[in-house]
Amino acid sequence: MPKIVDHEKQRHIVAQAALRVIQKFGLEQATVRNIAKEAGLSVGSMRHYFSTQVELFAFCMGLYAQRVQNRVAELTVEKPFLPDLKQLLLQFLPVNEERTKEIEVWFLFNAKVMIYPELKKVSEEMQNGLYRTAEFVIETLVESNLAKSGLDAALEAEKLYALVDGLAIHQLMQPGRLSPERLEYLLDQHLSSLCIREEESPRLS
Amino acid sequence: MPKIVDHEKQRHIVAQAALRVIQKFGLEQATVRNIAKEAGLSVGSMRHYFSTQVELFAFCMGLYAQRVQNRVAELTVEKPFLPDLKQLLLQFLPVNEERTKEIEVWFLFNAKVMIYPELKKVSEEMQNGLYRTAEFVIETLVESNLAKSGLDAALEAEKLYALVDGLAIHQLMQPGRLSPERLEYLLDQHLSSLCIREEESPRLS
Repeated sequence: MPKIVDHEKQRHIVAQAALRVIQKFGLEQATVRNIAKEAGLSVGSMRHYFSTQVELFAFCMGLYAQRVQNRVAELTVEKPFLPDLKQLLLQFLPVNEERTKEIEVWFLFNAKVMIYPELKKVSEEMQNGLYRTAEFVIETLVESNLAKSGLDAALEAEKLYALVDGLAIHQLMQPGRLSPERLEYLLDQHLSSLCIREEESPRLS
Repeated sequence: MPKIVDHEKQRHIVAQAALRVIQKFGLEQATVRNIAKEAGLSVGSMRHYFSTQVELFAFCMGLYAQRVQNRVAELTVEKPFLPDLKQLLLQFLPVNEERTKEIEVWFLFNAKVMIYPELKKVSEEMQNGLYRTAEFVIETLVESNLAKSGLDAALEAEKLYALVDGLAIHQLMQPGRLSPERLEYLLDQHLSSLCIREEESPRLS
């Protein structure tokens, strides 16, 4: 009897092996041979799961994008909003070992997007995820009447999107530049700066 | 008589050829053979100028860092300060074809920093250049009494540094995401948001 193989499950096993190889040795070492060895599969069987290296890379990037999206989807946002909104943004920042590894590998993949246009779609998916999160944060401030009057929501969403990606890249390039506490403080301060301050809030007298 | 060769000048010629190859075909095509051809030199002569590819890459990155630093050093900052401070920040953003190409190649090199630690120093040099510029912008606002009272200068410098790099990367990954005018408007708005607003300025009455 032929062995029944769960194709999709095997693709995940191969992709997880690829990610371990990339995290340990960089993209240059993500060869079919090395990934097969890490996955405990024969080199020959690899082509059943991914016909090209780029297809495998795109799948790996998709796994990361999905992981971040799942974390964001699991969070709830309730009063007082600011701490919860900050938690949403922290999902995209290297504040612990897991997220640091994610962002490191993500950065390596992104450098390949210019060479392999096939990776562009999944790269944009992640970027849109962060942009929509930034947009959601600003909209929540506006809709809950926390935002300063006259706040330009579209512009602030764009700024927040750039700020978070800029912080992520700086933390990646210079690990420990900002402590996790300082990074959280920075986001607290930024969100507060968009909100009505006490002296501006409507007075009862 | 032996031919007299200006070694440093030749290094610049080789590096400029390398940058043209990289801009056109990506880092993967920056082989000794291709660069020699572009520079109009023999493959064998290349090793007189750069003993390794990484040494050449580091030199190229240094040229870019120097170019940006020269542009920043040439600018003057005078009253009213905000437009001049914005100009300083724009030197790090892809607002025209020249700077877009610079940042594209810079991004490609940076993806190699994790693999070649020799590139780390020159990468940090450029990053420090942007950070010091951000710091200078904030300090100028504070020292000219334009900044809001209680402004956390160190935190705002860090935010501005991340904001500019985030914007640069987004423009690179999604060219035309923000028009040059929108990018300038965003910086105008950000700098203004750090300044005293009219209703807060000291009253004469």
